[in-house]
Amino acid sequence: MPRPIVAIAIGKKHYQKIMSRAAWEALTAFADVVEHPGQEPAAKPDLLSLLPTADACISSWGVAPFDADVLAAAPRLRAVAYAAGSVKPIVSDALWARHIHVTSAAPALGLSVAYTTLSLMIVGIKRILPLSRHVRAGGWQDGPYWPSRELIHKTVGIIGASHVGRHVIRLLQPFDAQVWLYDPYVSAEEARRIGATKVELDELLRRADVVSIHAPSLPETRHILNARTLALMKDDAILINTARGSLVDEAALVAELSKGRFFAFIDVTDPEPPAADHPFRRLENVVLTPHLAGIVEDATWLGEMEVEELRRFFAGEPPLNRVTREMLARIA
Amino acid sequence: MPRPIVAIAIGKKHYQKIMSRAAWEALTAFADVVEHPGQEPAAKPDLLSLLPTADACISSWGVAPFDADVLAAAPRLRAVAYAAGSVKPIVSDALWARHIHVTSAAPALGLSVAYTTLSLMIVGIKRILPLSRHVRAGGWQDGPYWPSRELIHKTVGIIGASHVGRHVIRLLQPFDAQVWLYDPYVSAEEARRIGATKVELDELLRRADVVSIHAPSLPETRHILNARTLALMKDDAILINTARGSLVDEAALVAELSKGRFFAFIDVTDPEPPAADHPFRRLENVVLTPHLAGIVEDATWLGEMEVEELRRFFAGEPPLNRVTREMLARIA
Repeated sequence: MPRPIVAIAIGKKHYQKIMSRAAWEALTAFADVVEHPGQEPAAKPDLLSLLPTADACISSWGVAPFDADVLAAAPRLRAVAYAAGSVKPIVSDALWARHIHVTSAAPALGLSVAYTTLSLMIVGIKRILPLSRHVRAGGWQDGPYWPSRELIHKTVGIIGASHVGRHVIRLLQPFDAQVWLYDPYVSAEEARRIGATKVELDELLRRADVVSIHAPSLPETRHILNARTLALMKDDAILINTARGSLVDEAALVAELSKGRFFAFIDVTDPEPPAADHPFRRLENVVLTPHLAGIVEDATWLGEMEVEELRRFFAGEPPLNRVTREMLARIA
Repeated sequence: MPRPIVAIAIGKKHYQKIMSRAAWEALTAFADVVEHPGQEPAAKPDLLSLLPTADACISSWGVAPFDADVLAAAPRLRAVAYAAGSVKPIVSDALWARHIHVTSAAPALGLSVAYTTLSLMIVGIKRILPLSRHVRAGGWQDGPYWPSRELIHKTVGIIGASHVGRHVIRLLQPFDAQVWLYDPYVSAEEARRIGATKVELDELLRRADVVSIHAPSLPETRHILNARTLALMKDDAILINTARGSLVDEAALVAELSKGRFFAFIDVTDPEPPAADHPFRRLENVVLTPHLAGIVEDATWLGEMEVEELRRFFAGEPPLNRVTREMLARIA
């Protein structure tokens, strides 16, 4: 059997942060490679000239979608390995119609988001930022935010058993916290198996000391946190959103945060970037960050994961994280 | 054999946060209990009246030391279980001369410090605080602190293989970071076994992206970070001190931080609290917190650990964390 031809569409600008030497060596051990020579991720015309001989393509952030035109120019294409998170920006009806094998590094990317989320939970529940401000103002172990708190024996509410949500639940296991999960697609048994207790959203919000959002952005999750549900949250709770801005009714959250009742770490807004005068940028009980929870600087293990996916595909082995059209309605 | 009498010297104010119902039930299963009835932790006169019948004592933060007078009033005392960290505030020559069995919950307390430290590493390396300030000033994914970074493939330098240092090294294992350890009492083999690479201090400081201090406060560790060693640190590094303030020459650190070269999370100062006009309180590249890394709000698992230590002691089983006089020269 001839060696497959794998096209790398990443572009030179992001190449180093996605493709390690180890990934390159693993790839060239089983495939011949054609590369998009530009600095930027391959745009549509770049894909049209890159893909005519390709059996597979390694794509990533910013690469043009595999639309009908691109696919018409890629008659041999059988697999797309997406060395990034959600494949939604790059898939198309035409792609699914061709039964092209799609894999994504979302689980690997999700681990990074989960670590960031865990660190925000600890920083949040320990009140590190308000206490640091209190110390700047001359205080020490006193004032309204002392004593500091910890996760032990607290209730942590996870909204959504996504890749990230499951990683976070796993990372929480050593903390002796109550981990509650709201996810209508997960049974009580599965919740228990992954380390959480299945609850309804209202109960979660009423009781959780930390609420962390890990649901996908879908029509049915839009504004899942709104004026009614946000009002259920406990005073002194910590809200963390490292998922998507559309899950939260931002006007309602601003109204609730303006009461000073709880503290929010917000890494995603709707739209991004948020308006220059967005209240999230100035509220004292908000830490707003520029969508940084996922990896951005060094994502070489994503490239390694997707090279492994292609090796498995051409060797006839089971994939690590295949994405199908049917899954798209429920995942990020 | 008669049931031992265990004195609880904690005082009502801190009782709930140290002694859970589970600890009480475990204790009263094998011992009779006498309790210091006051609100505050037992002062010396309280111990004098509490201990005459006691075979063992559960002590914790703020309880008076077991000095010669107290021990003279405690003729039956054979074991002290310290439901807190360092036993140095409560031990004495007279105690060691009596061969009293001393245990400490330092490893359990250290886990909490380690989790806090890990969260500061992630928050620090991801530049969450400078990026959050940048977003407050109107920015987003741009500016001098973008891109955010992560721990993967970074070098993390741990100073001191204390209980906390070892917990941190263990917690770092999933991050695919280089973990370097400086500890003159740990061999290269032991460092490898616990998940780190033994290096000298200067090399650690020159190469580490994150430097975290976990050494005890001893004469030979005083100002281990000083003008010479701090100058070795990389630009853009993160320095974390959740150990003791005396390990750092604060004037030298202020001078180095004033250059804006790196970022510091400082949870401990020398003395505490720091002066009202201490530069740590105002430098932009410092997050100063009021000695909160260890547990303060809910320490019931420390009480559970020390009840288990007493159960083991009276059952003739090996201790979990016995502290001897010889260890004191090398531990916190």
